[in-house]
Amino acid sequence: MERIAIYRREHFNAAHRLHNPDLSAAENQRIYGKCNNPNYHGHNYDLVVRVTGHVDKVTGYVMDTKVLSDLIKIHVLDVFDHRNMNMDVEPLRGINPTTENVAIAIYNILRPLIAGHLELKILLHETERNYVEYPA
Amino acid sequence: MERIAIYRREHFNAAHRLHNPDLSAAENQRIYGKCNNPNYHGHNYDLVVRVTGHVDKVTGYVMDTKVLSDLIKIHVLDVFDHRNMNMDVEPLRGINPTTENVAIAIYNILRPLIAGHLELKILLHETERNYVEYPA
Amino acid sequence: MERIAIYRREHFNAAHRLHNPDLSAAENQRIYGKCNNPNYHGHNYDLVVRVTGHVDKVTGYVMDTKVLSDLIKIHVLDVFDHRNMNMDVEPLRGINPTTENVAIAIYNILRPLIAGHLELKILLHETERNYVEYPA
Amino acid sequence: MERIAIYRREHFNAAHRLHNPDLSAAENQRIYGKCNNPNYHGHNYDLVVRVTGHVDKVTGYVMDTKVLSDLIKIHVLDVFDHRNMNMDVEPLRGINPTTENVAIAIYNILRPLIAGHLELKILLHETERNYVEYPA
Amino acid sequence: MERIAIYRREHFNAAHRLHNPDLSAAENQRIYGKCNNPNYHGHNYDLVVRVTGHVDKVTGYVMDTKVLSDLIKIHVLDVFDHRNMNMDVEPLRGINPTTENVAIAIYNILRPLIAGHLELKILLHETERNYVEYPA
Amino acid sequence: MERIAIYRREHFNAAHRLHNPDLSAAENQRIYGKCNNPNYHGHNYDLVVRVTGHVDKVTGYVMDTKVLSDLIKIHVLDVFDHRNMNMDVEPLRGINPTTENVAIAIYNILRPLIAGHLELKILLHETERNYVEYPA
Repeated sequence: MERIAIYRREHFNAAHRLHNPDLSAAENQRIYGKCNNPNYHGHNYDLVVRVTGHVDKVTGYVMDTKVLSDLIKIHVLDVFDHRNMNMDVEPLRGINPTTENVAIAIYNILRPLIAGHLELKILLHETERNYVEYPA
Repeated sequence: MERIAIYRREHFNAAHRLHNPDLSAAENQRIYGKCNNPNYHGHNYDLVVRVTGHVDKVTGYVMDTKVLSDLIKIHVLDVFDHRNMNMDVEPLRGINPTTENVAIAIYNILRPLIAGHLELKILLHETERNYVEYPA
Repeated sequence: MERIAIYRREHFNAAHRLHNPDLSAAENQRIYGKCNNPNYHGHNYDLVVRVTGHVDKVTGYVMDTKVLSDLIKIHVLDVFDHRNMNMDVEPLRGINPTTENVAIAIYNILRPLIAGHLELKILLHETERNYVEYPA
Repeated sequence: MERIAIYRREHFNAAHRLHNPDLSAAENQRIYGKCNNPNYHGHNYDLVVRVTGHVDKVTGYVMDTKVLSDLIKIHVLDVFDHRNMNMDVEPLRGINPTTENVAIAIYNILRPLIAGHLELKILLHETERNYVEYPA
Repeated sequence: MERIAIYRREHFNAAHRLHNPDLSAAENQRIYGKCNNPNYHGHNYDLVVRVTGHVDKVTGYVMDTKVLSDLIKIHVLDVFDHRNMNMDVEPLRGINPTTENVAIAIYNILRPLIAGHLELKILLHETERNYVEYPA
Repeated sequence: MERIAIYRREHFNAAHRLHNPDLSAAENQRIYGKCNNPNYHGHNYDLVVRVTGHVDKVTGYVMDTKVLSDLIKIHVLDVFDHRNMNMDVEPLRGINPTTENVAIAIYNILRPLIAGHLELKILLHETERNYVEYPA
């Protein structure tokens, strides 16, 4: 039997601005444009977590999506939702919260919590038009 | 011939927090919960503008949606997009940016810009699950 | 100030079949087709609740959507979700669970729970292609 | 018992250009812009038909959505789908196919086919961002 | 020329419950929760079939999506739609209808019907939040 | 660090018909059905461009989506949008505009414009039900 992937979609709302403190104000403005506005803006993030493995003969599941959903809720949503990602989110301390960097941070949070024989992938939608997938 | 409504959907991203300065910190927390978090959170707002009138015999339009879209862009999106609605948006000065109040502010911006014989309605989606319609 | 409507979208999954016990098997089959299949089928129902009133000066809300969501959860979702609407749902006892009848039943559940000065409307989506609105 | 509305969503793909033969080429270009391009462009139209009335005591339906769907299929989709609305669609002969005018034409096709005691409304989506509702 | 994938999205509605007859009632309840409710619940399933190969020089197609759609209709939709997947669907006899197991069953139905040089993949959405992909 | 993919969704509207001039009228009709109608039909195309690489340490980006969006706008949207793909679009000259062939043409336009160390993939949605991915 080949491997199968399960997907679980969750949701959080957060504020951020894009800013690299090692660059000048002018460089930040040139690179990030209005995403560099000093008082933050925000998004409805759609987070999709993909877990790949074999179907368990007893349960018919790769992994119980309720368990997966609870892990995401406790370790990601409770940390990111209704927060400012530049100021309030410990796993992003010192990290510029681009969609890429937020997705990688979420991967790094969840990877140790998912059994090692299961593959993990994160899809993070910042808007309907911009999203990322890690690892690709 | 009966009247017909046209709808134009636009989009902006903004930060906000819900807070009434006339209330105590405890009351703000009780009423707004995590929406009162001090460092802001944010949303992808979907803005739908509805204009109702008769079809023009020459153009076949109630109103040119390109003109409507430009009005929304200049007077709403350029003012709200990638901004903090508690700090940066002049039409919301002193107004608690609940979805209701933001929709009413957008209506008040657009109403004088749309010909008086045309009816105007605002639908504002804060998330997939919460949205408002003004006037109802 | 004119009235404003707030919308809250919720979700439940349920089984049903369409069947009128006062009709013959042949008439049920003619009217309901495959929706009359004896062992049930099911849907992901999208429930949108619309509440209309004036914005409260203190809160900036027509009604706290968290309160509305909790009312829907306790009185509708906990009663309908993952249930068989022909067998398990008390408010539908003796009622043929067409989308129309389910929407009216949900309206009758929620109407006494929402303040009388607020208007209430139910939108119930059975599929992406079929939905109803009550009252119209 | 109050009235209830049922909605049925259907879909067709068609080509068109916007052009008023009573206007000059320059005026057509000024009013319609790229929608006036001579060799046509096209859309995936989402058509939503709304029928309002009372629930039938025997069937639990306002109107059988299968019957409604068949009427739409025979009288609208078979006439508009995969056609050029400037050249191939008889009910649009001599009519500039703006979204407004197409919606009104569909209303005029369906109105005589739906029982007179039922209210009829057409929603026609030309894109995710532009749609109309007739009558408003 | 590299290979290209085509996707075809279809839809069916079905009832099910999750239950492993080799486990006790208590174990079934612990593992499946409300998905184990005895009288079934149901879903609107979105089925996406992905076929990968080279573009045919004559037709410009990997495979005619009309042919693919007809295969899905006859061999999947006519078997699963408006049915109870625990009782009525022969390809699931003795199989616990988790999303994983349903997707694998659909793959096994379609694999012999698609030319062997074309790769096949099934995406099955049980809800907006839960879906699977086989093979991963 | 592993590679990450960014996605950018854009949109255009175009007319086309499917027709191979090397085949007889009867063969074209048999293969393409109503998609062969002589006066064209059209679609709202959703174009998703996926670019894969490593995150830049300075910007936190794989590639600036604003730059990617501008490339797509200038080299694809300005060429395809509101055009007839059989008559007006130079990169499709002599090419039958099936979804497969349009996606490959868009890939061939964008590939030289994206840095060579970045992987490129095109997803093109012709309707909600039919879409392609190149390379697969």
